[in-house]
Amino acid sequence: MFAVTILGNNSALPMHDRHPTAQVVTYKDQCFLIDCGEGTQLQMNTFKIRKSRISHIFISHLHGDHYFGLFGLINSMGLNGRKEPLYIFGPAALKPLLHHIFEASETILPFPIHIHPILAEGLIWEGPAITISAFTVFHRIECWGFLFKEREKPRKINVEKVRAYDIPNAYLQQLKNGADYERKDGTLIPNEELTFPGTEPRSYAYCADTRFEPEKLCPILKDCSLLYHESTYLKSEHEKAIAHNHSTAEEAAIIAAQANAKRLIIGHFSSRYIDLNPFLEEAKAFFPKTDLAIEGTTYIVG
Amino acid sequence: MFAVTILGNNSALPMHDRHPTAQVVTYKDQCFLIDCGEGTQLQMNTFKIRKSRISHIFISHLHGDHYFGLFGLINSMGLNGRKEPLYIFGPAALKPLLHHIFEASETILPFPIHIHPILAEGLIWEGPAITISAFTVFHRIECWGFLFKEREKPRKINVEKVRAYDIPNAYLQQLKNGADYERKDGTLIPNEELTFPGTEPRSYAYCADTRFEPEKLCPILKDCSLLYHESTYLKSEHEKAIAHNHSTAEEAAIIAAQANAKRLIIGHFSSRYIDLNPFLEEAKAFFPKTDLAIEGTTYIVG
Repeated sequence: MFAVTILGNNSALPMHDRHPTAQVVTYKDQCFLIDCGEGTQLQMNTFKIRKSRISHIFISHLHGDHYFGLFGLINSMGLNGRKEPLYIFGPAALKPLLHHIFEASETILPFPIHIHPILAEGLIWEGPAITISAFTVFHRIECWGFLFKEREKPRKINVEKVRAYDIPNAYLQQLKNGADYERKDGTLIPNEELTFPGTEPRSYAYCADTRFEPEKLCPILKDCSLLYHESTYLKSEHEKAIAHNHSTAEEAAIIAAQANAKRLIIGHFSSRYIDLNPFLEEAKAFFPKTDLAIEGTTYIVG
Repeated sequence: MFAVTILGNNSALPMHDRHPTAQVVTYKDQCFLIDCGEGTQLQMNTFKIRKSRISHIFISHLHGDHYFGLFGLINSMGLNGRKEPLYIFGPAALKPLLHHIFEASETILPFPIHIHPILAEGLIWEGPAITISAFTVFHRIECWGFLFKEREKPRKINVEKVRAYDIPNAYLQQLKNGADYERKDGTLIPNEELTFPGTEPRSYAYCADTRFEPEKLCPILKDCSLLYHESTYLKSEHEKAIAHNHSTAEEAAIIAAQANAKRLIIGHFSSRYIDLNPFLEEAKAFFPKTDLAIEGTTYIVG
């Protein structure tokens, strides 16, 4: 399971029963939270996502609609008696802010919190099967995008060839890892002859909030399995998108197409729009495999 | 119109579709917000209370379930283009915290905010028809209760007597204000003979979060028209109420009875309780005119 569940799909002013940004990325048995707008813990209640499953939280930037739910979520984790550590990644200013909040309430949490400031682009976390990198996006204040990427998968054994060359089982793992095979007579059989390529690693990229930046973003997002790109406005409000450092649905779709993403989700809709279908139509004209980010919906990666 | 609308009736851990504390006190055309737990602005959307109507906000204490919604509410007021000043009253530590939050987002609000630290018990605000006082309640950290009280109402003219004594209209306002009337022959007619008492001033008292403190609280709450008193626990969890500086439903009712309140609302229910009826039964045994604080419900004062 590699999937993204949308908890909030609206921009800063919550309206029309849409909530500020938050998403849960599930990879096998791990849950990562990206952004945590006000009411995220309430949305987790609504959509039956247990807070205890969240091990890592990634905050893109310090506009309130992306993190004002973090304080309450942490509080509730404490009230639930959490013992497991919580890892938070975000702009450097987040750590003193959280300390300030919890000092004011004289709160002593029953679990350890590790707050890692993101200081540069690149790898910020790695697990056995996936890595998470941060990259800058262009917004009014410091803002980070996140790329969740599976590690290279092992190559698959070509059983017929392995039998034909009578290769012992003990060598199979090395072949999966890409090694060639040396026969007793000293001749070398190249790995490509003995194996097939492994399953393509899947990846999920999160781009919010950002102005349209194809030159910067497309190389980072190249070939990603699933791309979330903000689309606060329709192209009819293109001037507003520029003024507020946001993107239009058309621009999100152009990014997805140029980056050769497999699928696109668009979200962070301005409260000025009640009907979201025009976003879908506008994006699909440039990138047909587009979905609206709908709260409570889970999107499979790859 | 003097009324209280409940936006959140739960204690710190939001569950069972109950939300952290927030209430709107309406007095004629003015709206005052007491406490502002996470999601208050969403509850205001749900219950059709316009954010623009809130002129004053009173924060009892800096436990998150009483103010984590304040940052988002202020942000949204800004996004809505508010121009009118906003007045906030709360513990002294609130002001630097709000500044810290808005510095991190580099937010410049389009309306003035005046944050008044509450430093001592007594009057904190007065309007032409009501006054608002703060009083300390007993909790783990600094915590304030609030008393909204109408000013004394003018006395009512006893028309018959005024005619009998042939008192000119020009004197009526003085009579309403309590003055005696001096006749041309120098004799004095006492005000009580010429007027009836004015309508009794109504008052609303807010007590949360607090341990059971009858000696301290009852003189302050004496004869209040409507009392909100927290009741986080049932008496079966009396030990927990003591340990966490909260009250039981029975204790809230005892306070109401001893203070001679006209009506009581109880709220701030612990998430451990799904069914709230036992709270009502427990309180009514000591104070029959008790209501549960139900989200979205408006309770008339007096």
